[in-house]
Amino acid sequence: MKRIAVDMDGVLADVYEQFFKLDERDTGTRKTRASVAGIKELEAFPHGHQHVLSDDFFRTAPVMADSQRILEALNKQYEVFIVSSATEFPKSLSEKQAWLGEHFPFISWRQMVFCGSKTIVQADIMIDDHFKNLDHFTGQTILFSQPHNILADAGRHQRVKTWMEIEKLLL
Amino acid sequence: MKRIAVDMDGVLADVYEQFFKLDERDTGTRKTRASVAGIKELEAFPHGHQHVLSDDFFRTAPVMADSQRILEALNKQYEVFIVSSATEFPKSLSEKQAWLGEHFPFISWRQMVFCGSKTIVQADIMIDDHFKNLDHFTGQTILFSQPHNILADAGRHQRVKTWMEIEKLLL
Repeated sequence: MKRIAVDMDGVLADVYEQFFKLDERDTGTRKTRASVAGIKELEAFPHGHQHVLSDDFFRTAPVMADSQRILEALNKQYEVFIVSSATEFPKSLSEKQAWLGEHFPFISWRQMVFCGSKTIVQADIMIDDHFKNLDHFTGQTILFSQPHNILADAGRHQRVKTWMEIEKLLL
Repeated sequence: MKRIAVDMDGVLADVYEQFFKLDERDTGTRKTRASVAGIKELEAFPHGHQHVLSDDFFRTAPVMADSQRILEALNKQYEVFIVSSATEFPKSLSEKQAWLGEHFPFISWRQMVFCGSKTIVQADIMIDDHFKNLDHFTGQTILFSQPHNILADAGRHQRVKTWMEIEKLLL
């Protein structure tokens, strides 16, 4: 059974929606995805770092469209691990585990990995929105489109824009 | 640079001391390491599961003798990752990260991995007190002696009883 390492932020959890919402609360205007295209997340939003550190930022993130149904199907045909960069923001650890428990109850604690660097991950397939995680990975790499990566050449990674595309690719 | 995956409970953190202390508080008598030899941790202590779930169990665990000095030296010659089974007890996540920050401040958040199963870990060397983590690992394996494993044949794993032995082996 092939093993897939699935990222959380930007793949399962719609963190951009959180940034847009909090930025709008601060500034009174809502940025568009086009306006932050090609800019790193924490550079695109002036108070982004502060927002990431705030209570419930990760706990209340919306779920990416179709990810629940498709991940549940993947979970039957693959060995799924959810691998999330989390230790940079210690408070996020328990929020992320609770969030997974609420939205992806078929994922057991055995399938969760909260880390800093993903270089230690051994799997066959990695789905992530960050080049820094995919570039060193030697297996099959799927780049999930998000504004920060949208202008870059995907290179050897397969770019997908939606979970429906992952479904077509892997199921 | 070779990568080492170092376990926390039973290798860096003296969780037996926590079990002995809390068991003595409950029963009025203190068990010895000999009396729990060969018995799984949570079977050796009647209220062990409850203790593991209690506040500060992991946060206040004593540090294993010599582990700070020797891990700091290893950290200069190896790529060190601290890999801890933690997601079974969600509350332990932040306690463990805070504990590492206090006792091993030279370990950055980039070097921490909190997971359920360690099958996903890719490294050259693994130091752990549990066969379930070492047995599937294809690199060099070092079994850290603890009462629960002390009666078993170490098999292909190199058994060490102290951090001084790790120092001799790897430095």
